[in-house]
Amino acid sequence: MKVILFGASGTIGTAVGKALQENGHMVVGVSRRSGEFSADIRDIESLKALYKKIRSFDAVACAAGDVFPAPLEQSTDEQWASSLQSKAMGQINIVRAGLPFIADKGSFTLVSGILTDEVTFACTLGATINHTVEGFVKAAATELPRGLRINCVSPTVLTESKAYHPYFPGFIPVDASEVGQAYLRAISNPMTGRILKLHKTNS
Amino acid sequence: MKVILFGASGTIGTAVGKALQENGHMVVGVSRRSGEFSADIRDIESLKALYKKIRSFDAVACAAGDVFPAPLEQSTDEQWASSLQSKAMGQINIVRAGLPFIADKGSFTLVSGILTDEVTFACTLGATINHTVEGFVKAAATELPRGLRINCVSPTVLTESKAYHPYFPGFIPVDASEVGQAYLRAISNPMTGRILKLHKTNS
Repeated sequence: MKVILFGASGTIGTAVGKALQENGHMVVGVSRRSGEFSADIRDIESLKALYKKIRSFDAVACAAGDVFPAPLEQSTDEQWASSLQSKAMGQINIVRAGLPFIADKGSFTLVSGILTDEVTFACTLGATINHTVEGFVKAAATELPRGLRINCVSPTVLTESKAYHPYFPGFIPVDASEVGQAYLRAISNPMTGRILKLHKTNS
Repeated sequence: MKVILFGASGTIGTAVGKALQENGHMVVGVSRRSGEFSADIRDIESLKALYKKIRSFDAVACAAGDVFPAPLEQSTDEQWASSLQSKAMGQINIVRAGLPFIADKGSFTLVSGILTDEVTFACTLGATINHTVEGFVKAAATELPRGLRINCVSPTVLTESKAYHPYFPGFIPVDASEVGQAYLRAISNPMTGRILKLHKTNS
């Protein structure tokens, strides 16, 4: 299978690429700035240009999308707009722009995160964005044509992302390699509208 | 209690105003264009000006916010941006802009809709926006200061809104008066982070 992977150079993206390649898939890695294939997911025109360049593919996996967290009372218009434009509308537009190009029975796999389900301090902005992504995935699964599928991977904090650990006290991290396997599972099995939760919470 | 009511002249807003007034509350009705108090919820500056003018109040109820539905494949950038700006960020900004003004132990009550939970044709855009609102409400409940509360009312299609009935085949409509009672319940009881579902689905 030929899989377009957004955020290919990040911690999750690297693990997803590895999982896919080890299972015989061809990965077209997309990064924001560099490399043969680059796109800014905040800009739908850049996504359309990318898909036009790649032309044919079987699946899209997204491990990209920024959230700019802040305590609710101090959060700025700019933080809300940037987060919505990147992790929320950016991923929605990855699907919208990819629809005319993706092969029949292809799949999209997006990324949300544990803040949809669990609480941390100052989680509102991140939680809202994750809910947007998951809501889109669950509903879009009912609308996609040509046997296309869409799913979402929701990781907890990553073992490798030590800088984030202080913001997730008591949360049990997950290895990026396990997240990579979840993408592989979503892409390879006939599921749609599913949220695959890589959560290891102690409740 | 002094309650600011956004969307006061709409079908839900009228019912909310009635329920509140019948229970002895003072309602400050806000409409988009006309009347002593008007504001465009898509414009946070207009919200800030409104709150500054009203100055003190105990609760905010929102029955405003537009979604511009379209089948996913035909949906436009403009429909996505307008819907996010109105029903999603509009309501989030009603809270953000109101925080410096609302009385201690006050409450916000927002509106989502049944598309968070149930499927119709071409529901993705509406479902995504409703998920955004509900996600915000559930998370913001953990961050609000000074004993403030936040809840959300999720109505199914209204008995009174006959033009929408064809888009909800088999759905049992709810009377706007019942939705009004849900707002009254959210405002009057010590709940927070709750989604009050006025759903009468047959499942």
